[in-house]
Amino acid sequence: MPGRIRNRQLATKIVEADEAARLIPAGANVGMSGFTGAGYPKEVPGALAKRLAEANAQGDPMKVSLWTGASTAPELDGALAEADGIELRLPYQSDPVSREKINSGRMDYIDIHLSHVAQRVWQGFLGPLDVAVIEISGITEDGKLIPSSSVGNNKTWIEQADRVILEVNAWQSEQLEGMHDIYYGTTLPPYRRPIPLTDPRDRIGVPYLECPPEKIAAVVETEAPDRNTAFKEPDGISRAIAGHVLDFLTSEMRCGRIPESLLPLQSGVGNVANAVLAGLREGPFSGLTAYTEVIQDGMLDLIDSGTLRMASATAFSLSPSAVDRFNKHADEYRSRILLRPQEISNHPEVVRRLGCLAMNGIVEADIYGNINSTHMMGSRIQNGIGGSGDFARNAYTSIFVTPSTAKDGAISTIVPMVSHVDHTEHDVDVIVTEQGAADLRGLAPRQRAKQIIERCAHPDFRPALRDYYERSLAASYGGHTPHLLDESLSWHRKYLQEGTMRV
Amino acid sequence: MPGRIRNRQLATKIVEADEAARLIPAGANVGMSGFTGAGYPKEVPGALAKRLAEANAQGDPMKVSLWTGASTAPELDGALAEADGIELRLPYQSDPVSREKINSGRMDYIDIHLSHVAQRVWQGFLGPLDVAVIEISGITEDGKLIPSSSVGNNKTWIEQADRVILEVNAWQSEQLEGMHDIYYGTTLPPYRRPIPLTDPRDRIGVPYLECPPEKIAAVVETEAPDRNTAFKEPDGISRAIAGHVLDFLTSEMRCGRIPESLLPLQSGVGNVANAVLAGLREGPFSGLTAYTEVIQDGMLDLIDSGTLRMASATAFSLSPSAVDRFNKHADEYRSRILLRPQEISNHPEVVRRLGCLAMNGIVEADIYGNINSTHMMGSRIQNGIGGSGDFARNAYTSIFVTPSTAKDGAISTIVPMVSHVDHTEHDVDVIVTEQGAADLRGLAPRQRAKQIIERCAHPDFRPALRDYYERSLAASYGGHTPHLLDESLSWHRKYLQEGTMRV
Repeated sequence: MPGRIRNRQLATKIVEADEAARLIPAGANVGMSGFTGAGYPKEVPGALAKRLAEANAQGDPMKVSLWTGASTAPELDGALAEADGIELRLPYQSDPVSREKINSGRMDYIDIHLSHVAQRVWQGFLGPLDVAVIEISGITEDGKLIPSSSVGNNKTWIEQADRVILEVNAWQSEQLEGMHDIYYGTTLPPYRRPIPLTDPRDRIGVPYLECPPEKIAAVVETEAPDRNTAFKEPDGISRAIAGHVLDFLTSEMRCGRIPESLLPLQSGVGNVANAVLAGLREGPFSGLTAYTEVIQDGMLDLIDSGTLRMASATAFSLSPSAVDRFNKHADEYRSRILLRPQEISNHPEVVRRLGCLAMNGIVEADIYGNINSTHMMGSRIQNGIGGSGDFARNAYTSIFVTPSTAKDGAISTIVPMVSHVDHTEHDVDVIVTEQGAADLRGLAPRQRAKQIIERCAHPDFRPALRDYYERSLAASYGGHTPHLLDESLSWHRKYLQEGTMRV
Repeated sequence: MPGRIRNRQLATKIVEADEAARLIPAGANVGMSGFTGAGYPKEVPGALAKRLAEANAQGDPMKVSLWTGASTAPELDGALAEADGIELRLPYQSDPVSREKINSGRMDYIDIHLSHVAQRVWQGFLGPLDVAVIEISGITEDGKLIPSSSVGNNKTWIEQADRVILEVNAWQSEQLEGMHDIYYGTTLPPYRRPIPLTDPRDRIGVPYLECPPEKIAAVVETEAPDRNTAFKEPDGISRAIAGHVLDFLTSEMRCGRIPESLLPLQSGVGNVANAVLAGLREGPFSGLTAYTEVIQDGMLDLIDSGTLRMASATAFSLSPSAVDRFNKHADEYRSRILLRPQEISNHPEVVRRLGCLAMNGIVEADIYGNINSTHMMGSRIQNGIGGSGDFARNAYTSIFVTPSTAKDGAISTIVPMVSHVDHTEHDVDVIVTEQGAADLRGLAPRQRAKQIIERCAHPDFRPALRDYYERSLAASYGGHTPHLLDESLSWHRKYLQEGTMRV
């Protein structure tokens, strides 16, 4: 353990988690590390939750506002939400307890594009950041901080916070040192300069986080794993979706619209994404790169197979077996993986310049190509928009993927009108379900409707969608985007009343 | 007239408009110049419309697909739509005849972010561009093309078209020469480089459009004014909206969040925008810059008063009297105005870097801050999204303005749920009506609802909005964005049935 904290001055600041948590005042804005269950602090949040729960039990309620990179884990989001300790949460979460509190009105949540968070805080719109709680994997002799398995907003939290609490996690691989690229060149207008990144492989920063030692109020030693969930083999639906995505990419390549090395891939997390990554190994592609948020199991496989030259991200999200694999072969992976702050991994300027191929999952799509990524039945937040807006709007081609049904077939994910919009018709190029792919590029709304219904919707729901569309054509107020407003959300109403969208 | 076409070779290509129009084949994709009624071709479109109408009358229907910069004028959009000659139109239009054809299903229209158009065409998603018809103000001795009163997509049309028809308009000021900055550095990924623009005043290109002479199939001489509409003094509502915008900007400046010179202004076109510009003259601001799409009357006033140092745009949209003023004092304005291609004037990379203050008009907003900029009652397209998405998503602060009611008070522009979404909740910072301003930064949806209802809605509609919100809070499926799906679009349904949203 002493090997992880190599700076003498900071070694004197080692305390237990309980003591560190007492440095967080009631009502504080707290910035914590963590992105897709990687690199979040493991002990201080639990100690803070205990304190908040005690205060609440004693009738002296105490809450904090919690800002992170993205989703964390039960030990962080779950514990603090369980203690009713979160006033406001941003910018993305996937915790079931938090979700319940948000949707029951007991916690406020702000959904923000992941690339916007750092500048929002710099601008001061969210108030001052009182405390940062940041997991790192070590401290160098001269006091530089070796980042952990995610970077997220850590650079910004450290810069902006009045005081910083560090968790040094000995579970994290020592091989992480040198894998990060922390860019210190962002600033507020009118002083902004071009981000000097023109290839996913470019290093534009330094491998360490910097923090004036006097700001570091406490150092806590931990040794605990990230929220690594076991890898599930993709099911038939995921493989079918992946197949259509790969056919599309192959066809684009054969048309000469993208090179054999494709363009930098961005891929959401999960089963479908892993299935696409697996498929890329079999395809006619080589020399690929990724410019994305998260390194998941499928990316390691692609590196192993030699298909993927290099991946840039802001976090890992690996299964336990992939973590073992990473640790065993860290030397090889280190030259092929870079982790950056999320303001750079998701920066619109860079995404547009690189021309990413953006693949993201959704909740539902409508027949005109509007996308709902966040809300169940228009009102219940699931996780948040994450980085999908940063990538889709600026991508070379934006691809949205979903099974055509949900809840064992009770829900059609292709609906007459989405109940919430996160990606507008202007930002949606291709929609893919296990049924097929609708290529919407160059199509007007009425043309899109036919493609989406016939290629993406589940056959069980196609007749009702056709019927809605045909009657809308005849009776809509305007014919550009035909709708019958008394029916447009009736599929969702039916589900709420009857538990199914089926007739 | 010969003074305008100073190149001998191209002077030999002068023909009448009818002859030039015959160079456009049936079914062609045609790229025409024109942006906000400025710099569009004045004669070839009419000649083409005549040809199409004759073909249609003879039972041998002929149509073209029409791509422009943005809106044009009756002589172009109106004439071609009237002749039923447009198969597909993009990316923005404001012509009443076109609007009618689109909404009656007789013309297809694709609404595209203005910054996306050029790359979409380069990517080949829209098919090949057969002919470009471009208005210019002159040709130099060595064959360079002096742009006209708008740049729009002209660079891309000329590069991409198989053949080019030029209209040289002697009505345009000869003083335009040198006012343009045509950047030839954009390309497709993986070869994109940073756009080297860090200040609205930066020149990064050349003052001329370039075209290989062998591509120029015809040159037509014209002498006709742009669609300059008379300036209307802002009414009381516009002045009230402007007042709230100016109060907001003043407060931001006093908080130290923006400098006294503000940040580069982007402003939509019209009465409210002109009222805001007028107000800026009176405010505590100085040394302003604009990075916007259009130079309107108010901008000239601001330059005259010394408040505005410099404006970058892609087009003029001046009243006849402002055109006279421009022509009289062109020497002074020339050093303070730059016109760029719309892929640069609206480039997300540049807008984000400069940190624009983006002000755009809307159709309606909902109580959670989603914005509809394009569709009446969810189905009838009005004009299109224009550049509002390019600016709002990437702005330092996005401000959306609208009177709180429309149609003599029958319509509330603040509704429970918007009937179409063009700007999602993530991209909307401030909403302003004549009633007041709702500053949504840092607010969760339930907090936003209170601000929007109490500060922006018309008092006549507030009780019903409060009632909807309160009942939604109690009965919504999810409580993050409370909605009652059987009522959420009922205001629009009521308007369609009864001609009013009033109870």
